[in-house]
Amino acid sequence: MPDSAPLPSASPAAKTAEPSVTTGPFPASRKVFVPGRRHPEIRVAQREIDLEPSANEKPVAVYDTSGAYSDPTQTTDIRKGLAELRRSWIVARGDVEDTQGRAIKPEDNGLRRGEDSNVPVFDRATRGVLRAKPGQSVTQLAYARAGIVTAEMEYVAIRENLGREKMLEAARDGESFGAAIPDYVTPEFVRDEIARGRAIIPNNINHPETEPMIIGRNFLVKVNANIGNSIVTSSVAEEVDKLVWATRWGADTVMDLSTGRNIHTIREWIIRNSPVPIGTVPIYQALEKVGGKAEDLTWELFRDTLIEQAEQGVDYFTIHAGVRLGYIHLTADRVTGIVSRGGSIMAKWCLAHHQESFLYTHFREINEIMRAYDVAYSLGDGLRPGSNADANDRAQFAELETLGELTKMAWEDGVQVMIEGPGHVPMHKIKINMEKQLEECGEAPFYTLGPLVTDVAPGYDHITSGIGAAMIGWFGTALLCYVTPKEHLGLPDRDDVKTGVITYKIAAHAADLAKGHPGARERDDALSRARFEFRWRDQFNLSLDPETAEKFHDQTLPAEGAKLAHFCSMCGPKFCSMQISQEVRDYARSGMAEKSQEFLKQGAEIYTDSDGQPRVAAE
Amino acid sequence: MPDSAPLPSASPAAKTAEPSVTTGPFPASRKVFVPGRRHPEIRVAQREIDLEPSANEKPVAVYDTSGAYSDPTQTTDIRKGLAELRRSWIVARGDVEDTQGRAIKPEDNGLRRGEDSNVPVFDRATRGVLRAKPGQSVTQLAYARAGIVTAEMEYVAIRENLGREKMLEAARDGESFGAAIPDYVTPEFVRDEIARGRAIIPNNINHPETEPMIIGRNFLVKVNANIGNSIVTSSVAEEVDKLVWATRWGADTVMDLSTGRNIHTIREWIIRNSPVPIGTVPIYQALEKVGGKAEDLTWELFRDTLIEQAEQGVDYFTIHAGVRLGYIHLTADRVTGIVSRGGSIMAKWCLAHHQESFLYTHFREINEIMRAYDVAYSLGDGLRPGSNADANDRAQFAELETLGELTKMAWEDGVQVMIEGPGHVPMHKIKINMEKQLEECGEAPFYTLGPLVTDVAPGYDHITSGIGAAMIGWFGTALLCYVTPKEHLGLPDRDDVKTGVITYKIAAHAADLAKGHPGARERDDALSRARFEFRWRDQFNLSLDPETAEKFHDQTLPAEGAKLAHFCSMCGPKFCSMQISQEVRDYARSGMAEKSQEFLKQGAEIYTDSDGQPRVAAE
Repeated sequence: MPDSAPLPSASPAAKTAEPSVTTGPFPASRKVFVPGRRHPEIRVAQREIDLEPSANEKPVAVYDTSGAYSDPTQTTDIRKGLAELRRSWIVARGDVEDTQGRAIKPEDNGLRRGEDSNVPVFDRATRGVLRAKPGQSVTQLAYARAGIVTAEMEYVAIRENLGREKMLEAARDGESFGAAIPDYVTPEFVRDEIARGRAIIPNNINHPETEPMIIGRNFLVKVNANIGNSIVTSSVAEEVDKLVWATRWGADTVMDLSTGRNIHTIREWIIRNSPVPIGTVPIYQALEKVGGKAEDLTWELFRDTLIEQAEQGVDYFTIHAGVRLGYIHLTADRVTGIVSRGGSIMAKWCLAHHQESFLYTHFREINEIMRAYDVAYSLGDGLRPGSNADANDRAQFAELETLGELTKMAWEDGVQVMIEGPGHVPMHKIKINMEKQLEECGEAPFYTLGPLVTDVAPGYDHITSGIGAAMIGWFGTALLCYVTPKEHLGLPDRDDVKTGVITYKIAAHAADLAKGHPGARERDDALSRARFEFRWRDQFNLSLDPETAEKFHDQTLPAEGAKLAHFCSMCGPKFCSMQISQEVRDYARSGMAEKSQEFLKQGAEIYTDSDGQPRVAAE
Repeated sequence: MPDSAPLPSASPAAKTAEPSVTTGPFPASRKVFVPGRRHPEIRVAQREIDLEPSANEKPVAVYDTSGAYSDPTQTTDIRKGLAELRRSWIVARGDVEDTQGRAIKPEDNGLRRGEDSNVPVFDRATRGVLRAKPGQSVTQLAYARAGIVTAEMEYVAIRENLGREKMLEAARDGESFGAAIPDYVTPEFVRDEIARGRAIIPNNINHPETEPMIIGRNFLVKVNANIGNSIVTSSVAEEVDKLVWATRWGADTVMDLSTGRNIHTIREWIIRNSPVPIGTVPIYQALEKVGGKAEDLTWELFRDTLIEQAEQGVDYFTIHAGVRLGYIHLTADRVTGIVSRGGSIMAKWCLAHHQESFLYTHFREINEIMRAYDVAYSLGDGLRPGSNADANDRAQFAELETLGELTKMAWEDGVQVMIEGPGHVPMHKIKINMEKQLEECGEAPFYTLGPLVTDVAPGYDHITSGIGAAMIGWFGTALLCYVTPKEHLGLPDRDDVKTGVITYKIAAHAADLAKGHPGARERDDALSRARFEFRWRDQFNLSLDPETAEKFHDQTLPAEGAKLAHFCSMCGPKFCSMQISQEVRDYARSGMAEKSQEFLKQGAEIYTDSDGQPRVAAE
C-alpha cells in the first residue's frame, strides 16, 4: 500500500520525484497501545504477534520502531508528515515559545541566489519553530535533575518493559559487566538514569513526530541506521523511502548524512516523516556552504547551521569537538590516517589556521543552542581507527579523553550527551574501548560504529562489524550504528539498508540476551518452541524478517502443505530429529524403567509425508 | 571454464546429470608452490596476490584451499578425479597393503537388489583400497608419537607459516587464552602438537587427493562447509559443484551429510574430487540401510558401514558415542529436545532397546577401524542445545564429559580425535564451553557449529552463528562448522554455500587476529593501505570475495575510470576524508610549526572528478 502520488514540485522546471514508502502490518501482527499511568495521555505503541491456536500461547509483544506506517488503522501521507504526537506534551510544560525561526537561505540547499532547486519542498506552512523561553532549559536532562518525570520518560519506561512481567519469576541470567539493569523499568528509574547522564532521550522539541526512545547502558541496546544522499547519487524520494524502510525493520534512530545539494530540503522531508530520532553531522552542511573548502569554515557559519538544523528538529548532532590541534600529528604514521569525514575536515581546518578547533573553543556556546531545543550531543570520534592496524592508538584515546572533558561541560549546561566510538578494532581490543569510555566519560552512553573485527572482507562489512557490535553491545554500548554490505564500496540501496538493520538488530538482541535483560529471551523461546513443534507460520512470524524466512523455506518446499508438515527440507520426513526428539520426550516423561517393550509396540512411526498425510513406516 | 561433458550413466535408463564445476584463477593471483626441506617431494600450494605497481609492495601470500581447480596450469576432470598427491608418500612408508576392499552392495545406495540407480557411477577402476598391514598403526598420531615427521606434517607446517617471516620483527599482539601459538611453525612443532593430541591432520590413506591441513588450537582457525543431498532434493551434480565451490571460497574441510538414496555413489564423486578432507556422519547411511527405523540398527551393520566409508576415503567420522542411555531423560524438559540427527537416532535406539548405545559399548572396536585407515574421530555432540534456552544444560555437559572419556580411549589406541560442540548459546555462555571442553577432553581440538547467539533470526543464521563462531574461535575452537542463511529453513544452494563460507572465513580470520597469530594481519594491512591510497583494484583483489567487492563498487560507480579515481561514492570527489587525511599526513610529516601559510598556499585542492580528470576546486 505505498503512497504513490507525485510530490508538489518546487518549480515547474523541477524534476518530478514520485516517492513511495512501504506501509502495512507485519504478518499475524497487531499494534497495541499501552496507556501511561502518570501521564494518561500517552499511548505506547507495541506490536503483538499472534501465534497459531495450537500453540496455546499468549501473543508475543515486540518492540516496534515502525511508527504509524505499519498500522493499517492509521493513514499516513508523506506530503503532510506524521502526526505531532509530542507537541501537546511539550507545549503543556509551559517553557517554550513559538517563533518564526530563522529564514531559509538558498545556500542552506547549496544553491546560488536565484537558482532553482530540482527537488520538491516539504510544505510546513502550519508548523512554527519552538524554542526555550529565555532562561529556560527544555532538555530531558534538566527536567530529570529537577525531579520531573516527563511524558517522554514514562513512555520509554513502558516501552522498555516488554515481556518483563512474564519473565519476572524466571531466574535472571547474564553478565552485564557492571551495568545496573533493573528487574522492571519504572519512570522514576528512567528519570534517575537521565539525571545521572547515563541515558538520553534524544527528542528535539521541534521533532514532535517521534515516539520517544531511550539510549543507555541499562536499557535495551538500540540500532542506528545511516541514510542520506551524496553529491554522486540519490534523491529525496529514495531517502524518505529508506527512512521508513529502515524503521520498519527496526532502526531505533536514523542519521541523515546527506551531502551535496538540497541538504536542507531533504532533511525536512526526513524529519517530518520520521517516527524515530534523527541525527546529523552539521559540519557536512557547513562545508557545503563554503564550497567544500574546509579552511573557509567559520564559527559563525557553523553556529548558523546548528540553529538551522535545531529549528528543523534534528534530535542529535554529531560534533567532532575532540579533534584538537595537538592530536592531529598523532595520526601521521597511521595506516589509514583520519577516516572520519568530520574529523578530517576539522583536522584540515586546524592545520590551515594553525589554531585550536572552533568546535572546541566555542563548546559552551554550542551548549546554549543544544539546550534551547533539546538537541543531544553525539560527541564524534573524528580520530577513530580506520583499520585494525590503527585500533586503540594514542590518537584515538587522546580524543576520547577530550570527549570526557566535553561531556562534563555539556552536563554542567544541562545538555544530553552520548559518545561515539570506533571503527575498526580486532576482538581482543574491543573491551578496553568500552572500559575506557565508561571511565573517561562518566558513563555517558556509548554509540559505536561496528567495530569491524577484520579489514579483509569488503562486501561483507555488515558481518565483520556485526561481530564487533554484538560484543561491544554486550560490554555496554547503548547504541550501535549499523554498517551495510556496501560499506567502503558504495552507497547502500534499499536491500543494503534492510540487511544492515537486521544484522544490527541481531547484534543488539544478542547483547541484550548476554547482558541478562529480563524478558529478552521471550521471543527466542517462543520461536524455539514453534520450531520444535513445527509451527512454521509462527516461526516465520516471530522472526526478525518474516518475509525472508518464509521465502527461504519455500525455495526448497514451496507447497503450502509443507508449512503444515512435521518435517523440513533439511532431513525430510523419514529422518527428523525434532520428530524423534518429541518421541523421546514423550517416552522419557512416561518413565524410563521397563518401557522399551511398550515403546517398540507403540512405535509404529507416524511421520508425515510431503503431502501432509500420515505415513506408516514400512515394517 | 566449467567441465560440462555429461557423466557416464550407470544404466541406459538413468537420468543424465551434467555436472560442471567452477574453475580458474582468482584475479591478479598466481599459484605458487613452496617445496619441503625434509621432504623435497612436497610442494605446498599457496596463492599470491599481485598488487598494482604503484603500491611498491610484495605480493600478498594467502592460504589456499581451492586445489587444482583454481590453477590454470593444471587440467582437472571430475570424471577422473584429482591427482593422487599423497599416494606415493603413503606407500613409501611401507606399512599399508593394497586390498580388494569390501564389495559394494545395492543397499549402500539405498537400493533393493537388482534395482538401478538413477545417478552415474564414478569409475574408480584403477584405484585399490589401502589398509594398514596387520599390527601397524598408520595414523598421523602414531607416527608423531614414534617421532616421525611425516610429509603431511611438513606440508602443514609450511602451509601455516604464511606471512610469518615478514611479520617476525613486529611485536606480537593478541590474547590467546592459554594457547601456545609459536612465532614460527616448524615440522617438529606440528609433530609435537599431534603427538600430544592437541592437533589432527585428517587424512585417510584412501583419500590421497587431499592437500594436507591441520586442525588445532595453536594453528590457524579452520572452516568446515556442509554439503549433501537429502531425500527431498539435490543430486550428484549439485553436490560436486558445491564441494568445489565451497573450497574455492575457503572451506578447509567439507562434510557430506547426504541422506536418502545413492549415498555411496555421491560420496565417491565427492571424495575423488576433493582437495580437502571429507567428513561424514556414518549413522545417516546406516539408518538408510534399515529403512529409517532407528531401532533396527545393529552394531554389525554400523561396523560394515564404517568400513565401507573408510575404504572410500572419508577423512573423519562424526560418531555420537557420547549419547548414553542415562543422559536421555536429561533432555525431556528442554525447549528443543534433541536437535542433532545422529543424537536423536541413537537416543531412540537406546530407548527402544533400553540398552547402552552400541557406539559406546563397541568404541574400542571402532578405534580398530579408524586406526587401519587413519580416519579421525569427530566425536559428535548429539545432545547439543538447539535453542538458547537449552544452552549449557546438564544433558550437554554430561555428554561432553563422556566425550572426554572417549577421547582418552581413542588416544590409547592411536586414533586422532576432535570434539564437536554447540549449537545455540548466548554470548555470555560461550566461553565456559571452550574452557570445559579443554578440561574434559585434554586439549583435543574443538569443532563447533556456530554457536548461534540468538534464535530470533531464521534467514540470517549465518550471522547469528558467525558472531558466536568468531568468539569461540578466539577462545580456542580449532574448526568452525559453517551455518548458511538457509539453516532451519531449507537446503543451501550455491549462493548460500558461498555466503556461509565467506561468513565463516571472516569469523576464523577475526579469531586468528585476536589470538595474535603472527602474520595474520598482513592481508588486513595490505588491504587497508590499498584503501587509503585508493588502489581500488588491490582492495578488491585482496578481499575474501573480489567479485562481490567489485560488483558493489560498480553498482554506484560503474565506470572503469572510477576505479582509478581518488574518491569513492560515499563522499564524492569534494568531500573525501581519505584525501584530506593524506594532506594532513603530508603536512604533519613536514613539521607542525609555522606551516599554516604554506599549507594554504599549496592547498589548491586537486581532486579527481568522476570522469577521472583532475579538477581544481573553485576559489
